[in-house]
Amino acid sequence: MGQLPEFELIARHLRPLADKNAALNLADDAALMDGPDHTQWVIAKDAIVEDVHFRRNDPASTIAAKLLGTNLSDLAAMGAEPVHYLTVIARRPDLGDPWLASFCEGLAETQSLYGLTLLGGDTVSTVGPLLLSCTIIGRVPKGSAIQRTGAAVGDLLFVSGTLGDAALGLRVLNGLAATDDERIYLSRRYQVPEPRVALGVALRGLATACIDVSDGLAADVEHLAGCSGLGATIHLPALPLSAVGKRLPGAAMAALTGGDDYELAFTAPLGAKEQIMAAADRLGVRVTEIGVMTAGAGVTVLEIDGQVIQVDQAGWQHH
Amino acid sequence: MGQLPEFELIARHLRPLADKNAALNLADDAALMDGPDHTQWVIAKDAIVEDVHFRRNDPASTIAAKLLGTNLSDLAAMGAEPVHYLTVIARRPDLGDPWLASFCEGLAETQSLYGLTLLGGDTVSTVGPLLLSCTIIGRVPKGSAIQRTGAAVGDLLFVSGTLGDAALGLRVLNGLAATDDERIYLSRRYQVPEPRVALGVALRGLATACIDVSDGLAADVEHLAGCSGLGATIHLPALPLSAVGKRLPGAAMAALTGGDDYELAFTAPLGAKEQIMAAADRLGVRVTEIGVMTAGAGVTVLEIDGQVIQVDQAGWQHH
Repeated sequence: MGQLPEFELIARHLRPLADKNAALNLADDAALMDGPDHTQWVIAKDAIVEDVHFRRNDPASTIAAKLLGTNLSDLAAMGAEPVHYLTVIARRPDLGDPWLASFCEGLAETQSLYGLTLLGGDTVSTVGPLLLSCTIIGRVPKGSAIQRTGAAVGDLLFVSGTLGDAALGLRVLNGLAATDDERIYLSRRYQVPEPRVALGVALRGLATACIDVSDGLAADVEHLAGCSGLGATIHLPALPLSAVGKRLPGAAMAALTGGDDYELAFTAPLGAKEQIMAAADRLGVRVTEIGVMTAGAGVTVLEIDGQVIQVDQAGWQHH
Repeated sequence: MGQLPEFELIARHLRPLADKNAALNLADDAALMDGPDHTQWVIAKDAIVEDVHFRRNDPASTIAAKLLGTNLSDLAAMGAEPVHYLTVIARRPDLGDPWLASFCEGLAETQSLYGLTLLGGDTVSTVGPLLLSCTIIGRVPKGSAIQRTGAAVGDLLFVSGTLGDAALGLRVLNGLAATDDERIYLSRRYQVPEPRVALGVALRGLATACIDVSDGLAADVEHLAGCSGLGATIHLPALPLSAVGKRLPGAAMAALTGGDDYELAFTAPLGAKEQIMAAADRLGVRVTEIGVMTAGAGVTVLEIDGQVIQVDQAGWQHH
């Protein structure tokens, strides 16, 4: 009566149900449907659950920001611009109308920031944990969605922003000692993801493969590499840490295996690096080269002296 | 700290977030997005929760059939042909892989019956009740989706199939005395909706407004009429009961106020009646004229002698 890890579960039970073309084999962040005038709709659906993806006591408005942020991050990884979303809100009876009003304020703020509008959805009651589901819809010029399968041996591996802050933020919220400034910065990184939507759009035609970092860099890069039938080498000292994050214990390992960062990890040939860095500069988004795609399978993590790091399996899978 | 009824909640908190065009004011069964070649995508999202929309002990395969069936019913009400769906599966830890395998068999059977394929989704864990969400996507020729706002005074009111069976089925499953034949027929009507997809497609250009009966006929017709700024009169003796259903106590009231039938209630001018009945005959679907649209607001229910029936408010709202 066990439950398989999600990748296996999808492969065994859900892939046989999938559309052969539009669903991209259920291996990508989102699926594609034709739109008007040589565009494609990009559509993804993710859910977040209390005490798994957010904390029971998180403010309703940041829960809304996290719901939309995690889904916007799927669009970002495909290079899509956000257009619409639908939600299911499954509430406990004690979450009344003031809670809902605050939740909807969070939706309003986030949708205005990223330029999308609500299309519909459903509200239901549950006696269990608060559960929120979102279907998000973006748009790309036909054929320009960034997929996970295009990486080649020798492609460079990049990541946006800084890593590990969200995992550290969760630890701080759960009691890890920190100054007020550290607590404010890191808890916000956990509670309010900043999906890299503009960067994703800029990476169309430049990145060969892209994924958003939700389960942790090592796990997500392993998955990304696997989709192209490749392995990857990550240089641990190259991982971008925030000025605040690096002050806390475990920052490097949080950067490698912590989840919830919602940064983009992507590959591109050396020849595209200059354009990528120029686009990142223009958008004011930090982009860092952190490794390279290799033949074989799996992720090898190298210390500064070239020593191989063992990554604890517990860091490879979202709980 | 109360929770508003769903219609009010949508009006107050969610409608301000909605897309002014595509979301149809969140007043319809689904929203519209442009597709290729003068088509439109029709998109809806509904969730079902254990012990609210289905019983904890229902077979996994019928829970899957209900998830897709209720969503297909939203497409049927818009006259859309089904194309794709996405799911969120939020499972308790005790629902292991055998449960999931059976659930996916139910999805496979239903998707094959109605001709749609899986696009994507998410699987999460919850310690609370099993919760399943579906986003369903259908297609119509541009401009031909049946909406809720087109009814006029004097339009006839029709309903498909028979009413009340699902509510009686739930009562039988919960212990109401019945023969084996009655139990089998009625419990299936509760567990496995038969969305009126083919009828919905046939009603394009004929029906002026359409809704699927999920909360109970009286509540749904009141809502449908309200969307056109009208009232409606329903003739109680005209409500179509199944041969099995009418043998049980409370069949007529179940037909009027019971939920979960997933039949279509729709309006059309007298001049379209012949074509509607011919289409229903061709499809082998029973369609019954049950009333008329009126000026004013609200639903008036008439007995055979013209006496007005009071409908208990408890019957007007899904629990």
